[in-house]
Amino acid sequence: MTKLQVIKVGGAVVEDAAAVGAFLDGFAALEGPKVLVHGGGRSATALAAQLGVPTVMVGGRRVTDAAMLRIVTMVYAGEVNKTLVAALQGRGVNALGLCGADLGWMRSTRRPAGEVDYGFVGDVCRVDTTVLVDLIARGVVPVLAPLTHDGQGQLLNTNADSIASEAAKAFARDFDVTLTFCFEHPGVLRDPADAGSVIPRITRDDYRKYLDQGVISGGMIPKLDNAYAAIDAGVSRVVITRWDALQPGQGTLIQ
Amino acid sequence: MTKLQVIKVGGAVVEDAAAVGAFLDGFAALEGPKVLVHGGGRSATALAAQLGVPTVMVGGRRVTDAAMLRIVTMVYAGEVNKTLVAALQGRGVNALGLCGADLGWMRSTRRPAGEVDYGFVGDVCRVDTTVLVDLIARGVVPVLAPLTHDGQGQLLNTNADSIASEAAKAFARDFDVTLTFCFEHPGVLRDPADAGSVIPRITRDDYRKYLDQGVISGGMIPKLDNAYAAIDAGVSRVVITRWDALQPGQGTLIQ
Repeated sequence: MTKLQVIKVGGAVVEDAAAVGAFLDGFAALEGPKVLVHGGGRSATALAAQLGVPTVMVGGRRVTDAAMLRIVTMVYAGEVNKTLVAALQGRGVNALGLCGADLGWMRSTRRPAGEVDYGFVGDVCRVDTTVLVDLIARGVVPVLAPLTHDGQGQLLNTNADSIASEAAKAFARDFDVTLTFCFEHPGVLRDPADAGSVIPRITRDDYRKYLDQGVISGGMIPKLDNAYAAIDAGVSRVVITRWDALQPGQGTLIQ
Repeated sequence: MTKLQVIKVGGAVVEDAAAVGAFLDGFAALEGPKVLVHGGGRSATALAAQLGVPTVMVGGRRVTDAAMLRIVTMVYAGEVNKTLVAALQGRGVNALGLCGADLGWMRSTRRPAGEVDYGFVGDVCRVDTTVLVDLIARGVVPVLAPLTHDGQGQLLNTNADSIASEAAKAFARDFDVTLTFCFEHPGVLRDPADAGSVIPRITRDDYRKYLDQGVISGGMIPKLDNAYAAIDAGVSRVVITRWDALQPGQGTLIQ
């Protein structure tokens, strides 16, 4: 099976002019088929403040009323996505920016209002990569903005990590997929205070052991759980690395 | 040759919630391959005002400094483009939103500063429809935002009428192209005050005659000149019609 790399990069990198250049140089240098998934939350929050729209986050997720949906649509699918696409074209990468409504490729269901009404937020329910698989075979590099649609005309805000995981799982039907999450840290660390303590490879047995020992704790647990959920769903491997260390062998390989 | 319709619709329609629904119903009902080109200038001007960025127009063209480029990128490629794409998907049309940087399909050259420095404004210099032609054969409907790129990483603002004309000319290599411009009027009128006086068909001989008689004058002259320039470059026919009258036989047919 042909290898495909799905790289997720967060807002902190794509919104920092110096960092994004270095990241894109590294991304452009990656050989073979690849997909980029980006965030943009900080820019959305900044634009919302400029426009007098309050930002409300619950459990790390953005409450998205109509005014906020307009803002994230402008920032994610407009400013951030097209700036990345143009920058990649300038680096010889044939990028194609997409949200989930484009080609109808990623459909979601509006999250029902429970204790919290998240508003126009969607949970992914159907991913159709048929056309994207063919475009990738022609050398096209999809650049995915974290917006989906319900198939009835409504755009919905969807977490970029979820987009990356769902895309990686769907592409795993046609590719040997490596899903890479880029952070500020160089990988999973034995000692959070020591950037040199990267664990190069974690298996399920290692993970159990590190949990027992308390080596992996806190916010790293859901990341590892999500990684193994993706692997259970067909993704070959997950990498957690720093945004400027994308080459094979860098960061932590999770298998 | 397979027929292709390239439909240009202006900001006044796509920014009016009632009008855009009726327009999209008509667009969705059009049979066969089709492409939509949209504007969005009024929304850009409104957002600019909210953000305290002055809008400067010279000869109907927007002067685009860095702050204004960010605004038009957010509005054209984000808000307007993705709202249209989601609405078309909801109507069963497999829409794909693109700016000129996506797939590198429309490249432009930054306009040199002369008497006026338009800033980040590009004049189209290269159109590559190869991938789009294949996507259209698969039933995909491109939805084109009025932004281009210079191939070096820079997005540039480009007039939507120019995008429509340049796209139509490039598609004419592979399709029998009808280029339709949607306005508030139902076509070219014999009497501007009488919406019932639509001229159903204009040939070059007719055009000369109408010019001599003063039937066609003022702002209609550049529209007709542009129509014949497109026809000279390979477009089969140009239609000028109202945004809610897209079916064959409506409006003014220019040949």
